[in-house]
Amino acid sequence: MPARTPLDAGAILAATEDILRRHGPDKATVIDVARALGVSHAAVYKHFASKQALREAVTRRWLDRNRDTLAVVAADRAVPPARRLRAWLHAVLAVKQAKIREDPELFAAYGILAAAHSAVATDHVADLLAQLTAIIADGVEDGSFRTGDPRATARAVFHATAKYNHLAHAAEWQDPGIGAELDEVCSLLLEGLRAPASP
Amino acid sequence: MPARTPLDAGAILAATEDILRRHGPDKATVIDVARALGVSHAAVYKHFASKQALREAVTRRWLDRNRDTLAVVAADRAVPPARRLRAWLHAVLAVKQAKIREDPELFAAYGILAAAHSAVATDHVADLLAQLTAIIADGVEDGSFRTGDPRATARAVFHATAKYNHLAHAAEWQDPGIGAELDEVCSLLLEGLRAPASP
Repeated sequence: MPARTPLDAGAILAATEDILRRHGPDKATVIDVARALGVSHAAVYKHFASKQALREAVTRRWLDRNRDTLAVVAADRAVPPARRLRAWLHAVLAVKQAKIREDPELFAAYGILAAAHSAVATDHVADLLAQLTAIIADGVEDGSFRTGDPRATARAVFHATAKYNHLAHAAEWQDPGIGAELDEVCSLLLEGLRAPASP
Repeated sequence: MPARTPLDAGAILAATEDILRRHGPDKATVIDVARALGVSHAAVYKHFASKQALREAVTRRWLDRNRDTLAVVAADRAVPPARRLRAWLHAVLAVKQAKIREDPELFAAYGILAAAHSAVATDHVADLLAQLTAIIADGVEDGSFRTGDPRATARAVFHATAKYNHLAHAAEWQDPGIGAELDEVCSLLLEGLRAPASP
């Protein structure tokens, strides 16, 4: 927990992000961050015990920045599950497209960090999978989807939309047809999820 | 067309691949290839008008190396379309896994070339999509699949399996669970393609 002092963890992470944006991941070290903030290394180490811990924290903060936007879409029970699933998959793509557009250098720097700190990326994916599982479970509950294992099905849907959620495809997310393409994939996946109409 | 001389296009491409394997894409130039073969630049230029043409040709040859293996799977009408679609998607992954395993340096070098010469990669994908379209059209014909547009559906299936066919995911293809994961995605996609049982 950040102490109630002028130098809290948030200020350190903001300074780290500023360094990442301007100088790339190599410079995101405790020493460089302390220098940028005009404080001692010890002051930064008090909050982040190592370069590794600092990098993981800043990467986690970035990956989870739009977590709540997506959680709201996932939990909106006013929208039927099939429509909600499609909206959520589009929202995942949209928040990532926005991140690139707003700050391409920072996006590239975080892409390198996310690949290097795979445990952080794994946690991020687990969180997204939990949101997706909840939508699918709602669909099973109201009879619109058919699956015995919403978690396994969520995993299959997530993998089947890797082109629209995995950083490795970031270069393709600015293609003008990418949204329409995702929509075609959604339609096919929703056909696969749909429960047969009652006789 | 290669002339019937000791130096044909095939010998040039083989020498280029050998340079790629040992020195990476930067050295795959007409000058380096001519030196390796002990011939003049002009002799190489007779077959490949530019560095660009040489690199495109060697990349195309590599991407299409297992084309016929996959074409045989796609065209095997003795296998019902649903089973054939699954087998083909697994075969696409398997040929790429084998390429990495057999020669990881060469795989990395070609990955860089394929990204740089996107028109070659686009032709390769178009060829794979034609194979996939044929499987889906066979399924529509025998009543096992339902789609009004086999080509659009093939595109959706291909995009939904990007994690198992796109070079950007090469690092994940050696994961021990990757085949089982693809199988889950296949099952979901096949559910989406399946025509409803006749009443």
